Amino acid sequence: MKNDSMRQIADALLEAQSIDILTHIMMDGDAIGSAVALCLALRKAGKRADVIIEDDIAEYLEFLDYGCTKSVDEAEGGADVCVILDCSVRSRFRERERIFDSAAKKICVDHHETKEPIADLHYIDPSSAATGELVYLLLKEMGAEIDKDIASCLFAAIATDTGNFMYSNTSKRSHEIVSELYDTGFDAYSVSMQLYENEPYRKIALHGKVVAGAEMIEGGRIVMAKVSRKMLEESGADFEDTEGIVSILRSIKGVEAAALVKEKKPEEIKVSLRSKEYVDVAKVGSQFDGGGHKRAAGCTIRTDLDTAYEQIKEALRKEICRG
Amino acid sequence: MKNDSMRQIADALLEAQSIDILTHIMMDGDAIGSAVALCLALRKAGKRADVIIEDDIAEYLEFLDYGCTKSVDEAEGGADVCVILDCSVRSRFRERERIFDSAAKKICVDHHETKEPIADLHYIDPSSAATGELVYLLLKEMGAEIDKDIASCLFAAIATDTGNFMYSNTSKRSHEIVSELYDTGFDAYSVSMQLYENEPYRKIALHGKVVAGAEMIEGGRIVMAKVSRKMLEESGADFEDTEGIVSILRSIKGVEAAALVKEKKPEEIKVSLRSKEYVDVAKVGSQFDGGGHKRAAGCTIRTDLDTAYEQIKEALRKEICRG
Repeated sequence: MKNDSMRQIADALLEAQSIDILTHIMMDGDAIGSAVALCLALRKAGKRADVIIEDDIAEYLEFLDYGCTKSVDEAEGGADVCVILDCSVRSRFRERERIFDSAAKKICVDHHETKEPIADLHYIDPSSAATGELVYLLLKEMGAEIDKDIASCLFAAIATDTGNFMYSNTSKRSHEIVSELYDTGFDAYSVSMQLYENEPYRKIALHGKVVAGAEMIEGGRIVMAKVSRKMLEESGADFEDTEGIVSILRSIKGVEAAALVKEKKPEEIKVSLRSKEYVDVAKVGSQFDGGGHKRAAGCTIRTDLDTAYEQIKEALRKEICRG
Repeated sequence: MKNDSMRQIADALLEAQSIDILTHIMMDGDAIGSAVALCLALRKAGKRADVIIEDDIAEYLEFLDYGCTKSVDEAEGGADVCVILDCSVRSRFRERERIFDSAAKKICVDHHETKEPIADLHYIDPSSAATGELVYLLLKEMGAEIDKDIASCLFAAIATDTGNFMYSNTSKRSHEIVSELYDTGFDAYSVSMQLYENEPYRKIALHGKVVAGAEMIEGGRIVMAKVSRKMLEESGADFEDTEGIVSILRSIKGVEAAALVKEKKPEEIKVSLRSKEYVDVAKVGSQFDGGGHKRAAGCTIRTDLDTAYEQIKEALRKEICRG
């Protein structure tokens, strides 16, 4: 798929008067950070811009809202431009398709591998660590002034998607962009504290419990753990509190691939997959109609927790033997 | 205390033929990363350079050795220059004082607050996130070529001392330096994996257990936990496996200050202190002859575990009421 230029995308936005911004469901830091950064910049330029959402913002990301998000029920659609960020598949903005389809022009900016074009203009760069980096480049191209709030959003986007500059997607450019964000005087420490140092005690306790029950497989190259509804209830924890557990599992010495299998509802099992060096977990996720990156992916399996767990174990075993 | 210029320090090193490099006991990533980076650069310049150590390197930092460290028992001393990095108090290199004192010229480069000069030339910059940043500036001043190995050491130094670019000491310069390190083609991901994703399972399990037993004090503004010899034995864990627990404690929502009180030996209690925004834990540490930074400090108390725990609790309570 051929990219359009950032210039074309900047021009389309500069010409528009009304812009709806979408991103994928279950927003992570890169999704909401990128979307709100673009929204703030467009509003500063005097345009009507909103980030239209169809599900709740995770509690730890709520501080990135900056008054920009609007429920899909309140949104009218029919904007001059609809921009979809950090997402290029319709299944991840299903309830907002009418907003997207009713826009006069559609733009897609993403860093996930993409095969099918869904918009009029595309900028897809899988080499980019975060969509936040691409939004930064777009804002520069638009000549937008980056203020503290926008910098906070972009920093959150880049920091979360690079695992705090640890993952292999991190590049020279990631650090260059962040060093330029510092010129705004934004408070990176405060953003980090809100992102990472704001964990309810119930969550930390749940993490300890789940990790202690982890299973080491294939001589310790795979680690897996499961979270049942019962475990959540016993810890007084929410489903969202499972976030981060899979990273702890992956950090175990000798582990190449980690999976956390979570019972969201009966027969709705969410799986988080991570790897260190050679297992392509996006491949494993895609076997169950999920997706993601080589080192971080996910899927949903519609069966019971134990069956899903065994299916993922089998798929990971096959993948690790191939790797 | 007045600093000498980086130029004077660079000249002293360029003129020397033999250089001994020291850093503090219980090396962290910044200590060993800074010391080995400087050692590698000096060796590339054809000089005799060694990093002299008096205690073991923590397992997770061993990959940063690069053949540079030498036990104090094997060291002769009497070098043209002895450089002490990331440390400016004699109590933290007690067994190597003869190496330091026998050098013709003594240099101290550090980012900790310092009152008493201990060397002939000093460069003390408490605004620097890591001594690794100062070593980078020194290498530039020396005209040294920074290769992949040196870049790996400096990245480890900066990444660990900034908590992966999260702590408030992180600056525009931290990111600028790291972006320049990327020019060497060093593998930041591999360094990060070795630093953080190489945890023995026993350590992860110990962390879960200790955190689950934490005590919330002063309405949750203080969190404390203790680790006894018995807990370590039950988990099959080493004392070093306690590293990182205090950061987990600090990450709890509403917590301002966190303390982990660890029984290293009977009557030798090590305390790690962290804070988020306003409590100066260096002040608390210094009440027990320890030290560190405002947001990260430590001390050793020579009493039993429970008494030390209560003493720290009292000191933190007083400090949080003042804050």
